[in-house]
Amino acid sequence: MSAAFPPLRDELRGIEPYGAPQLDPALVPVQLNVNENPYGPSPETAADIAHAVGEAATTLNRYPDREFVELRSALAAYLNGSGGSGITPEMVWAANGSNEVMLQLLQAFGGPGRVALSFAPTYSMYPEYARDALTEWHAGRRAEDFSLDLDAARELVLDKRPVVVLLPSPNNPTGTALPPEAVTMLCEAAASYEPGGLVVVDEAYGEFRRAGTPSALELLPQHRNLVVTRTMSKAFALAGARVGYLAADPAVCDAIRVVRLPYHLSAVTQATALAALRHAPELLGRVDDLRVERDATVEWLRREGFEVADSDANFVLFGRFAERHAVWRGLVDRGVLIRETGPDGWLRVSIGTAEEMTAFKDALLETVRQTSEERPA
Amino acid sequence: MSAAFPPLRDELRGIEPYGAPQLDPALVPVQLNVNENPYGPSPETAADIAHAVGEAATTLNRYPDREFVELRSALAAYLNGSGGSGITPEMVWAANGSNEVMLQLLQAFGGPGRVALSFAPTYSMYPEYARDALTEWHAGRRAEDFSLDLDAARELVLDKRPVVVLLPSPNNPTGTALPPEAVTMLCEAAASYEPGGLVVVDEAYGEFRRAGTPSALELLPQHRNLVVTRTMSKAFALAGARVGYLAADPAVCDAIRVVRLPYHLSAVTQATALAALRHAPELLGRVDDLRVERDATVEWLRREGFEVADSDANFVLFGRFAERHAVWRGLVDRGVLIRETGPDGWLRVSIGTAEEMTAFKDALLETVRQTSEERPA
Repeated sequence: MSAAFPPLRDELRGIEPYGAPQLDPALVPVQLNVNENPYGPSPETAADIAHAVGEAATTLNRYPDREFVELRSALAAYLNGSGGSGITPEMVWAANGSNEVMLQLLQAFGGPGRVALSFAPTYSMYPEYARDALTEWHAGRRAEDFSLDLDAARELVLDKRPVVVLLPSPNNPTGTALPPEAVTMLCEAAASYEPGGLVVVDEAYGEFRRAGTPSALELLPQHRNLVVTRTMSKAFALAGARVGYLAADPAVCDAIRVVRLPYHLSAVTQATALAALRHAPELLGRVDDLRVERDATVEWLRREGFEVADSDANFVLFGRFAERHAVWRGLVDRGVLIRETGPDGWLRVSIGTAEEMTAFKDALLETVRQTSEERPA
Repeated sequence: MSAAFPPLRDELRGIEPYGAPQLDPALVPVQLNVNENPYGPSPETAADIAHAVGEAATTLNRYPDREFVELRSALAAYLNGSGGSGITPEMVWAANGSNEVMLQLLQAFGGPGRVALSFAPTYSMYPEYARDALTEWHAGRRAEDFSLDLDAARELVLDKRPVVVLLPSPNNPTGTALPPEAVTMLCEAAASYEPGGLVVVDEAYGEFRRAGTPSALELLPQHRNLVVTRTMSKAFALAGARVGYLAADPAVCDAIRVVRLPYHLSAVTQATALAALRHAPELLGRVDDLRVERDATVEWLRREGFEVADSDANFVLFGRFAERHAVWRGLVDRGVLIRETGPDGWLRVSIGTAEEMTAFKDALLETVRQTSEERPA
């Protein structure tokens, strides 16, 4: 037997599995680290989900609808009320979390000799998807304020000729939304070379965007190579159900069908998502509160002298700290779990309830006082 | 824009998505094509699943337990009562169907320059997993009776040096079980070269094995490079829930954690599987009936002059037909859906209820009479 059991791929040796620390809520009760919606389903909605799953459970010995037709229709209807128009079920694809959607996109369109591209700092899973789909990963840089320099971005796309451009809007972990002209410009650039690139606007946090920030869904009719992804994990308060989805040209969905694992969406997942979509007004009902709380958090942090990125999401990136790990640790010690992510010196806090944000603010001020961490200039 | 929109990988062009035809049960009521268990959960079990999901639903705004500790424990306990012993939670891994388990194994251990190997005829998804994980695929041949020629199999392993050997037992679509000495011999062969290979015994249909056919789980303590996969889709009557799993050295599970998508198992899936495991005696309660029905089907087919492969599974491969598609079509026209799969000339029928098998037999005899299909010599 080889000394290096098991025979892991060389590229994976020594790599830690991705994932934020999961700390016991009994010890760290204020969990503001993975951008969850703090407001869970009402008892009525939970009961309706249970009822739907109970119906599905009577035939769980049978495989689920491989094409999840009913769910695709319901998601299309939802998108048409959430920034989109004219979206048909054939334009919708779903999987177990938008991370499975992203992996499927790269499995279908990436692969050896092909490039996936984004602009850093950005979502730290992207390079992992590329690695797992054996696609060359390239990251350009965002500007100092985390926006995109559009001309530089276009130049980079024309130079690297990516088959997939991953553009989160709002961006994680910075919260930065993308102006529509960026989407248009990059879609045009990616359509100008062979075999052409898809521009994937990742709107995982799209529902939290500020008034006046349009969804890229509006641009779907103009750009055949535009893909807009969404998730039910964030605004929809359904992280535990693992449902991500996209809207795109039907040919993109058909292509994904070649690489999807058959029956990838369980009957239980389909029933849960459909029930949740019937309760969309309730589940999304706290989005406005969370946006108000986010804006207040940004203001408060600025008032307290921190540097803060503009945010269209349900989280805020703030800093900068000489020793961010010490600050993160100080908050954990005070019962508040935030995320040590993004560029060096910055920390990210998810927007929770008003009480949770008060706990965060108190813990932050205390920590900064005690760690003799200097406020940024 | 490129003429060949979307920019699918060249290797995927023209490929049809995998999957048996899904025909409307209203038109083709006897569905014996995807090896489902015909006996669904009782109303009590369905209600208990609904109750468990209802509990989970109250916190669906939170991400699920990424390490699914409780489910791993329950699956370990189940395996220790189903041919295994001493299996701990750290030795268990689960995903959305055993096809996700297989893909993860190939993502972790396969990749460019590495070989996955099996022996044809075998499960037609295996080469697709290899393709999606960009792993070179090699298929040796089974003997005329679908068994393995052990010496030839060992030679092939030593020659191709696969990093993953996929060995279904019982094999799909032939139903052929693997003798324990085959597992031992191939584990030893695969441990004799660098970087070593994993021998994955796919026991998706393991619970249907005939008396005297041991599970490869018994051999886990002897072979560190042995991986045994199972599913809840077949004997467990839970195809709609999409839960597959494996037992192996804890280091294998740890390696998979590097390539798994974070939170790949939803809270709903975890709750459903845990509830189902609490009802294992009921859900598995018809396995003995199905084995009796299978053996009777094999005997009947042989009496009627068909060629039939020995089966340790819940399906039977029979033939041979000069025009198998015409026979398949004749059965569909008579309301019975079976599967056109396996080597040319053969068809596969899943074991259903006694009534369904009667419908199958009647339809088969009628079809063969009408299509002037000659019985095999």
